[in-house]
Amino acid sequence: MRPHDLPVLGAAPPIAAAAWLNAEAPIALEALRGRVVLLHAFQMLCPGCVLHGVPQAQRAAQLACDDLVVLGLHSVFEHHDAMTPAALAAFAHEFGLRFPIAIDAHRGADPLPATMRAYALQGTPSTLLVDRAGRLRLHRFGALDDLELGLALGALLAEAH
Amino acid sequence: MRPHDLPVLGAAPPIAAAAWLNAEAPIALEALRGRVVLLHAFQMLCPGCVLHGVPQAQRAAQLACDDLVVLGLHSVFEHHDAMTPAALAAFAHEFGLRFPIAIDAHRGADPLPATMRAYALQGTPSTLLVDRAGRLRLHRFGALDDLELGLALGALLAEAH
Amino acid sequence: MRPHDLPVLGAAPPIAAAAWLNAEAPIALEALRGRVVLLHAFQMLCPGCVLHGVPQAQRAAQLACDDLVVLGLHSVFEHHDAMTPAALAAFAHEFGLRFPIAIDAHRGADPLPATMRAYALQGTPSTLLVDRAGRLRLHRFGALDDLELGLALGALLAEAH
Amino acid sequence: MRPHDLPVLGAAPPIAAAAWLNAEAPIALEALRGRVVLLHAFQMLCPGCVLHGVPQAQRAAQLACDDLVVLGLHSVFEHHDAMTPAALAAFAHEFGLRFPIAIDAHRGADPLPATMRAYALQGTPSTLLVDRAGRLRLHRFGALDDLELGLALGALLAEAH
Repeated sequence: MRPHDLPVLGAAPPIAAAAWLNAEAPIALEALRGRVVLLHAFQMLCPGCVLHGVPQAQRAAQLACDDLVVLGLHSVFEHHDAMTPAALAAFAHEFGLRFPIAIDAHRGADPLPATMRAYALQGTPSTLLVDRAGRLRLHRFGALDDLELGLALGALLAEAH
Repeated sequence: MRPHDLPVLGAAPPIAAAAWLNAEAPIALEALRGRVVLLHAFQMLCPGCVLHGVPQAQRAAQLACDDLVVLGLHSVFEHHDAMTPAALAAFAHEFGLRFPIAIDAHRGADPLPATMRAYALQGTPSTLLVDRAGRLRLHRFGALDDLELGLALGALLAEAH
Repeated sequence: MRPHDLPVLGAAPPIAAAAWLNAEAPIALEALRGRVVLLHAFQMLCPGCVLHGVPQAQRAAQLACDDLVVLGLHSVFEHHDAMTPAALAAFAHEFGLRFPIAIDAHRGADPLPATMRAYALQGTPSTLLVDRAGRLRLHRFGALDDLELGLALGALLAEAH
Repeated sequence: MRPHDLPVLGAAPPIAAAAWLNAEAPIALEALRGRVVLLHAFQMLCPGCVLHGVPQAQRAAQLACDDLVVLGLHSVFEHHDAMTPAALAAFAHEFGLRFPIAIDAHRGADPLPATMRAYALQGTPSTLLVDRAGRLRLHRFGALDDLELGLALGALLAEAH
């Protein structure tokens, strides 16, 4: 496969958020049709997220425009008592995160939050790219090079509306 | 002043800890006479700490020996509801911190914890060096180069017991 | 302008090479029609090149494929006695550069080499992107983020052959 | 061995220099008795030197004082036609090196320069520390952490004149 090939991985499931940070109202993926969406799944106490993934999402957010939306997804699946909404708000404030962040919703006794389960995420950080038609095009667990991420974003942005 | 001059800044105040992490029993500075102590004051949600100070303390801790002790001091003065002892334990676990960490004690209604006040820390991260005789010899707020920290440690380790 | 807009800057001038490194035969841009070309102009003794630009070109070269070609352009405009072809060969060997490198040709008494002049480069490092139709689409002097470079490459790769 | 132990490795051999850069006159180690000397052996086309060793020597040079001298040693043992004195001068100028640099002297047909042979260096970069009494105390090939280098310098600076 060529590095810029991004096969369609199916329709992107909706985001199941218990709450949103840095957003005046809940954001639905459905409402973002016509735009490319970078959804960055992280946990505030995950070293790979804090040291690599979140700074990358911040760099990507600086490129956000009418065509490109950057969203965070706080998918807590461990240390639930430490990574509370209040703690996340403090983290986002201290690290200067400005992009909207969905707090992944917990359902019943399931230790995995609902969006994490719907996307079958293997862990954090995970990078998800949704195309203008609402289809999942990249699903990557772990570190992703800026060059590769840029290549993928450029390819999706070039697709017709 | 030459870079390796470390004037005596007075007796190092005792650590006022509400609890300890990574230690079987409370650690008193007084019990460390004869050894050089690096006391790294941090907050788990302070970016300068997470990205610079704490990794440096981890590197220093790899040099720990009979003559050199590395201790953390979690001095929370903001976002108290987010940086709880349970949250700190999760942070230390996830980031692989192995050195002993004192949780700076809060007294009455004072928003600043007691050790932070006793050392007149300006914020986090702060690097404190205590010599073999229990005297404070370095008191630095903010980022400190590894080279400078090493120089200071080398100078103090060279002093007679 | 949106970050992924790459206006046409005219036809890409041919590369005027005195010699090539890492290539069995001279490479003509004209022969690369249908492919996207990243042309990285550098000098082996330019700190911004050695520390940033050349490592970035190496990362991009790892993504090279039928659709994407990465070429170096050694455009010496200072310290001519130090940056000789033999010195460049030693540099490329030691730093593990595998992509083809054109040695920019000098014409008469002009201190600027010919390709550098044809592209009106302001200095090194410079990043030049040529689209599948042989048109110059990016002309950037100085450091370029990996994310931005990737975005541009992705956009150009997505254009029809 | 404790990290701050620096056994005596014998008398430091003299520097055999063909020429000096950034120095008004040749510098003899013998003339530096009473001061600690960091001698950084490098080659201008050695990636480990350019990316790690030389920047570290530059950081150390910022701490230079009456008690601490930082010297470079350009020990060319390969690519002799590329790493000429003129090329080194261009390199030092472009990378902003201000500390004195000895050009290691070649003797007869020996491909290894004389100082490199006298110190039995395994390659570049190599870090050599000479104490106030002119004795070699550290002899390290390859990357050395800033923290370790600082520790060693601090220990040597603390020794009596």
